[in-house]
Amino acid sequence: MQFVARIQHEKIRQAAGLLAEFDLDCWLLLGRETGELCDPSLPLILETAVTWQSAFLIDRSGEALAIVGRYDVQNVEQSGGFTRVIGYDEDLGAPLVNELSRLAPRKIGLNYSRDNHTSDGLTMGMYLSLLDWLKGTPFADRLESADRFASALRGRKSPGELALIHQAIVATVDLFGRVPAMLSHGIAEAELQERLHEAVDRLGATTSWERQYCPIVNFGPESVMGHAGPGALALEPGHVVHLDFGVKLNGYCSDIQRCWYVPRPGEQAPPAEVLTAFEAVKGAIEAAAAYLRPGRVGADVDGVARRFITEAGFPEYKHALGHQVGRTCHDGATLLGPRWPRYGDTVEQPVAEGEVYTLELGVQTSAGIVSLEEMVVVTADGCRFLTEPQRELSIVI
Amino acid sequence: MQFVARIQHEKIRQAAGLLAEFDLDCWLLLGRETGELCDPSLPLILETAVTWQSAFLIDRSGEALAIVGRYDVQNVEQSGGFTRVIGYDEDLGAPLVNELSRLAPRKIGLNYSRDNHTSDGLTMGMYLSLLDWLKGTPFADRLESADRFASALRGRKSPGELALIHQAIVATVDLFGRVPAMLSHGIAEAELQERLHEAVDRLGATTSWERQYCPIVNFGPESVMGHAGPGALALEPGHVVHLDFGVKLNGYCSDIQRCWYVPRPGEQAPPAEVLTAFEAVKGAIEAAAAYLRPGRVGADVDGVARRFITEAGFPEYKHALGHQVGRTCHDGATLLGPRWPRYGDTVEQPVAEGEVYTLELGVQTSAGIVSLEEMVVVTADGCRFLTEPQRELSIVI
Repeated sequence: MQFVARIQHEKIRQAAGLLAEFDLDCWLLLGRETGELCDPSLPLILETAVTWQSAFLIDRSGEALAIVGRYDVQNVEQSGGFTRVIGYDEDLGAPLVNELSRLAPRKIGLNYSRDNHTSDGLTMGMYLSLLDWLKGTPFADRLESADRFASALRGRKSPGELALIHQAIVATVDLFGRVPAMLSHGIAEAELQERLHEAVDRLGATTSWERQYCPIVNFGPESVMGHAGPGALALEPGHVVHLDFGVKLNGYCSDIQRCWYVPRPGEQAPPAEVLTAFEAVKGAIEAAAAYLRPGRVGADVDGVARRFITEAGFPEYKHALGHQVGRTCHDGATLLGPRWPRYGDTVEQPVAEGEVYTLELGVQTSAGIVSLEEMVVVTADGCRFLTEPQRELSIVI
Repeated sequence: MQFVARIQHEKIRQAAGLLAEFDLDCWLLLGRETGELCDPSLPLILETAVTWQSAFLIDRSGEALAIVGRYDVQNVEQSGGFTRVIGYDEDLGAPLVNELSRLAPRKIGLNYSRDNHTSDGLTMGMYLSLLDWLKGTPFADRLESADRFASALRGRKSPGELALIHQAIVATVDLFGRVPAMLSHGIAEAELQERLHEAVDRLGATTSWERQYCPIVNFGPESVMGHAGPGALALEPGHVVHLDFGVKLNGYCSDIQRCWYVPRPGEQAPPAEVLTAFEAVKGAIEAAAAYLRPGRVGADVDGVARRFITEAGFPEYKHALGHQVGRTCHDGATLLGPRWPRYGDTVEQPVAEGEVYTLELGVQTSAGIVSLEEMVVVTADGCRFLTEPQRELSIVI
């Protein structure tokens, strides 16, 4: 708990500093019953949930205000990072307008975004209430999207955040190391998932995404690629085993894919088709990592891997090459993805130092899905692998 | 899993039927990365999370469509309640406009609301995207708030939902029954919470609200009322013990308050001041329950209890008398509360049959907080207690 609180201090300080870079005077987050529906930015700066309508305001000057219902005051004060916590009984509007009048911001950033779900935590109803409160004040005309700012705050990991991501990766790599011993002819995809769930529970961790789909387990060519839960398919000789897995530990996630090959009687190595696919997938990830550095545009990084895999004679992967990872597995903002409408302008953004990305793609073979996913952090002049990349397709059982 | 899926079938059928009552032709829910931020209405009709931008459309005709990213198609199909699941690769807009053109709704309900957090799941960014998709179609002018509809769908519990709420109540009452044996002189508030957490974990349940504040535990007069976590305060003779507690079991919640008195040496009964407070609190709840029936306005129900307690000589409670309970502890929509700005028009709504409410209030005494909370379901001509109300302030230890 103490460790997480320290991160929220780090992020509040970082937020005050980033406001100038993104030409905002203050950042205003609104929420209510945040245990039920919470702006994805709020946990970066507040550890607890609030019940009544609440406003959180970080000013370029470094002031960090929380205006919350009286019963939430104590919790929010204990969470520690705010310079002042103001309680109210009946109406949030008046104290909010008071504070805005005192701070007199010219540009107020709100959390809404067409393209970044993690910067899109403002609900329509809260926005309409805000317009009601600001009626007759100059502030209604000073509202704008804080998308870029909120994405930067979330994406550029603090030292404490990188340490926690590293912890989640170490735990996941350890679990992957135990997988070969869990495999046997005839085991079902769902059984392997269950064994890994038990291991996750023993760690006191949770899965990085919905438990029923984490890990994704694919045995052989009949298993469906995508966000589907493992089923009754049984492991047989000649199958590729593919896992897409991550754990959330102390609030931060990992997301890694690995694969193995189960030989048929007499086979000493995976079939040439499978090895060729593996080398192409690995090569595409390496090519993208070599290209990735601050200032590169997301779509261009994706383009390097996409060209590599298609020039190797494989079809395009039907998703983005990489997403950011942090408090959530799909952590929003800049995406390393193709210029498809549903990705909007998230793929047009430049990569920044401190961001953590996955690099992931796969191809279908007649033995099953061959797919890899590594994690990298962007450095001043390139990127550094946070995972030890999978270099060979090992034989198991 | 099967039982929950059946409830989602019940709610999809109920939704189609309610559209006519609220003069809507269809209801449109939008979401993405719903594992991270999910419209509170979505779990009523869909058991799983979706990743890409997705649309869920229930038409008055009974058609229930899901338009989701290709990798989510299988999950959503397996969740079962939709008449058709449409997958897309690149852009949600085109298939959504296609389906709207075919169904040709005159009034399209969207989930936004100033006052009901459970009907306010549409984010600003998703709304702006929807306006982009609908540009040049007649549908952009046919959008309106589905607040009343979504509140009715959530509030009017199906038989399956009532059975699950009952299950959560039974479990909670059983845990309250074990509290007296957990108490001893000198035990800290936080220790009692820990013992109850262990019991909740053994049940395979979770707490109804944030674990660190559930149960709320108050020992004696120095303990702070409100949404604060239990602390180091130790139980002493002359203390009132107060708990606000609930468990979530199979997706549905309970929320109940109970209190006890720890006598000083030689005391045979609680002091007169405490007994008088207890009778006033109990009487206010009984008076409100006697008044509660379909058609009564939320603020008027609250008024009955508020008048009762002030006429008994106690200060007004600084919160609403009652909130709805269901998938979440504060389940939104009609509130039995005073006409304060922050409650907006949730307190102006009429009560409807099938809704489940808490009735809760308390007063401060020199021995501690005396506060009760019961749960009721609204019937055709009144209400029925789902909890066996606390009738006496028992002595413990």
